[in-house]
Amino acid sequence: MNDPSKSLVPTLVADSVRLTDEGVDILDRRVFPLERRWVHCATVEDVAVAIEDMVTQSSGPFFAAAAGMVLAARQAAPSSDRVGHLELAAARLVATRPTNNLVRQATDRMLAAAHAIGDDASVAVAIEAAARQAGDEYLERSRQLGRHAAALFEHGDAILTHCWGESYLTEAFAAAIRDGKSVTAMVTETRPYLQGARLTAESLGEIGVEVTVITDNMGAWAMAQGRVTRFVTAADRVTLDGHVVNKIGTLQLAIAARHHGIPYHALVHGPDLEAPTAADVPIEERDGDEVLQVLGTRTASRLAKGWYPAFDVTPPDLVTTVVTSRGTFEPGALRTRNWDDA
Amino acid sequence: MNDPSKSLVPTLVADSVRLTDEGVDILDRRVFPLERRWVHCATVEDVAVAIEDMVTQSSGPFFAAAAGMVLAARQAAPSSDRVGHLELAAARLVATRPTNNLVRQATDRMLAAAHAIGDDASVAVAIEAAARQAGDEYLERSRQLGRHAAALFEHGDAILTHCWGESYLTEAFAAAIRDGKSVTAMVTETRPYLQGARLTAESLGEIGVEVTVITDNMGAWAMAQGRVTRFVTAADRVTLDGHVVNKIGTLQLAIAARHHGIPYHALVHGPDLEAPTAADVPIEERDGDEVLQVLGTRTASRLAKGWYPAFDVTPPDLVTTVVTSRGTFEPGALRTRNWDDA
Repeated sequence: MNDPSKSLVPTLVADSVRLTDEGVDILDRRVFPLERRWVHCATVEDVAVAIEDMVTQSSGPFFAAAAGMVLAARQAAPSSDRVGHLELAAARLVATRPTNNLVRQATDRMLAAAHAIGDDASVAVAIEAAARQAGDEYLERSRQLGRHAAALFEHGDAILTHCWGESYLTEAFAAAIRDGKSVTAMVTETRPYLQGARLTAESLGEIGVEVTVITDNMGAWAMAQGRVTRFVTAADRVTLDGHVVNKIGTLQLAIAARHHGIPYHALVHGPDLEAPTAADVPIEERDGDEVLQVLGTRTASRLAKGWYPAFDVTPPDLVTTVVTSRGTFEPGALRTRNWDDA
Repeated sequence: MNDPSKSLVPTLVADSVRLTDEGVDILDRRVFPLERRWVHCATVEDVAVAIEDMVTQSSGPFFAAAAGMVLAARQAAPSSDRVGHLELAAARLVATRPTNNLVRQATDRMLAAAHAIGDDASVAVAIEAAARQAGDEYLERSRQLGRHAAALFEHGDAILTHCWGESYLTEAFAAAIRDGKSVTAMVTETRPYLQGARLTAESLGEIGVEVTVITDNMGAWAMAQGRVTRFVTAADRVTLDGHVVNKIGTLQLAIAARHHGIPYHALVHGPDLEAPTAADVPIEERDGDEVLQVLGTRTASRLAKGWYPAFDVTPPDLVTTVVTSRGTFEPGALRTRNWDDA
C-alpha cells in the first residue's frame, strides 16, 4: 500500500543541485544513497568536469548547467565581453556529453537571457533568475508528463523500469498515487553505474512505492513469469520519427516486452525537433574499463577488455507510446503535432 | 589472432576440485580470478555446504560431489552399513541445488560403484576410482561436444556467451582454434555473481581467445550494431522437448538473438531423459538479497527488496540448435534419438 503521508517528491528531484553564493554543490549520484556526498564546484569548468565524470546525470545536468552559467556570469570580469564569456561557458558545458541534449536546452535559455540584457553588470542577476525559472518550468513539465503517464496505468500494475527516469518517472508514480492507483515497481539495477538499484529504488521507495530490484538479465524472465504489466522508461531523446534514445539496455527490454505482448511507454518532455531520426543523435561511447568494475572495485578478469556504449536506440515499432508533457502519442504520430508551444 | 602455444584447457577446467588424503579442496569461484583461494572440505557435509554457498558452480558440483562421495566412503565406520551411509551422503549432496542435475549424475555413478562392491572395506578405493573415471569421461564428452559446436562456427565469428559454460564452452573454442578458425568472444558479466566477467573472460583469455566483457544490458545493442554473429551458451538442463534451462538472462538474449536473426546454440552433453518438458525442472530461487550486493558490498538502496530467480527457461522456438556430445540437433529432434548410449 502507498502511504499518503509521504512526500511525493524524492530527494534526487527536490534537492540535487544547490546554487549558493560560493558556487554550485552537486549531489554525487555515483554513490547516492549509499553515501550522501556533495561535489563543490567553484567555477563553470568544475561543473563541466562534474558532468563528464557522472557526478550527476539524467536531468541533473540540466540544473547543473544552468547553475554553471550563473557562476560564469558572476565571474565574468567587469571589463570583458560578458556575453562572449557566457557563450564560451555554454560551449564548454554542451561539449561534456553528446547524447542527452538537456545541457544545450539549459545553456540556450541562459544565453537568451544574457542576450536580452546585453553586456551589463546585471547579467548575473538575470541569469540566476532565468536558471531558477527554467528549473521550475522543467519540473512543471514533468508534472504534466506524469499525469499523462499515470492515466495509462491501471490499478495493480507492476511496472518495470530501467535506469533512473528522474522527475519524469517519479511524477508518473506520484500522479498514480494521487489518483488512488496502487502500482508497484520492478527496477533493473542498471550496470555499470547501478542507477536503478541506487537512484530509482531509493527515489520510488521515498515516495512510498514498493520496489523490487533485479539484475539487468532478469527482465524477460520476469515478463515470462507474469510479474510485469508495463515497461516504462524515461528517454534521453526521442527523435521526430519516434526512435527512443535511452540508457543502454532499454532496447533489450523493449524487445522482450514486445515478445511478451507488454506495452512500452517512453517518457520525455517532447521530441527533439532538431533530430528527424536516430542518425541525427550521437551515441556516446564511454571508456570500456568502466564495465570491468563496480563502484571502483575491479570485477572482471585482467585478460578481458570492456565495451561501453552508454545508450542504445529503440526503433518506433518497439515503442507503444511516447508520453510527453503535451500528451500521449504513438511514436509515428509525433511528427504530426506542432511542437512550437512545447 | 589465437596463439597456438597456449594450452587449450584453462585452469577452471583443469584444476578446480582437488581430492587429497586430507579431504577435498575446491577452488573458490566466487572470487576467482580476482583471488585464487581454495575452500577445504574435510567431510561430505562440508562439500554440500560449499555447493550451496556457490563456492563452485556450473560443472564444478559434478566433480565436487564425486569427490564428496569419496570422503563419505572413507569416513564410513567399519562396523556400519557402508552403502546406506553412502546413500545418505548422496541424498545430502543432491539436495544442495535443484535445477542442474549434474550432482545427481555424479552421485548415481558413485552409488552404482558402491552397490557393485557391497558393504566391504574396499568400497572407498572403488569409489575413488569411479570418481576419477567419471571425471575423465565427463571431460571427454565435453571434447566431443566442443568438436560438434566448432563445426558450426565460421572463421571470423563474434560469439556472444552468457555466464560460464565450463568445459562445454572452452572445448568449443579450443576445437575452433585447432581447426584454424579465428573467433572472438563477447561475454556478459552475468550478475549477480559475475561469472562471465570473471570465470568466462579469464578462461577464454587463458586459451588465447580475444574477449570483450559487456554488462548484462548490452547484448541486444551489440547485436543491432553487428558485433555478434552467434549466441552460444551451455545449458544446465535441456528437456526432451527442447526447452533450455540455463542461467538467468539466457532467455532475454535468446529473444534478442531471434529478433536480430542471429542463431542460438545451446551446449549440453545430452538432454535430460527424466525431463520431458520444462515443468519437470524445478527453477531455483535464491535469496533476493544477493542481487542487492556485488561481491559482498551493498549496491542497492535500503528501501528496495531483491528478487533472484537463478535460472530461466528458453522455449524451443527460440533455440536454433542443441549441440550435444553425440552431435547437433534441432530442439524438436532431440526426442527422436535413442539416448541409451549417452
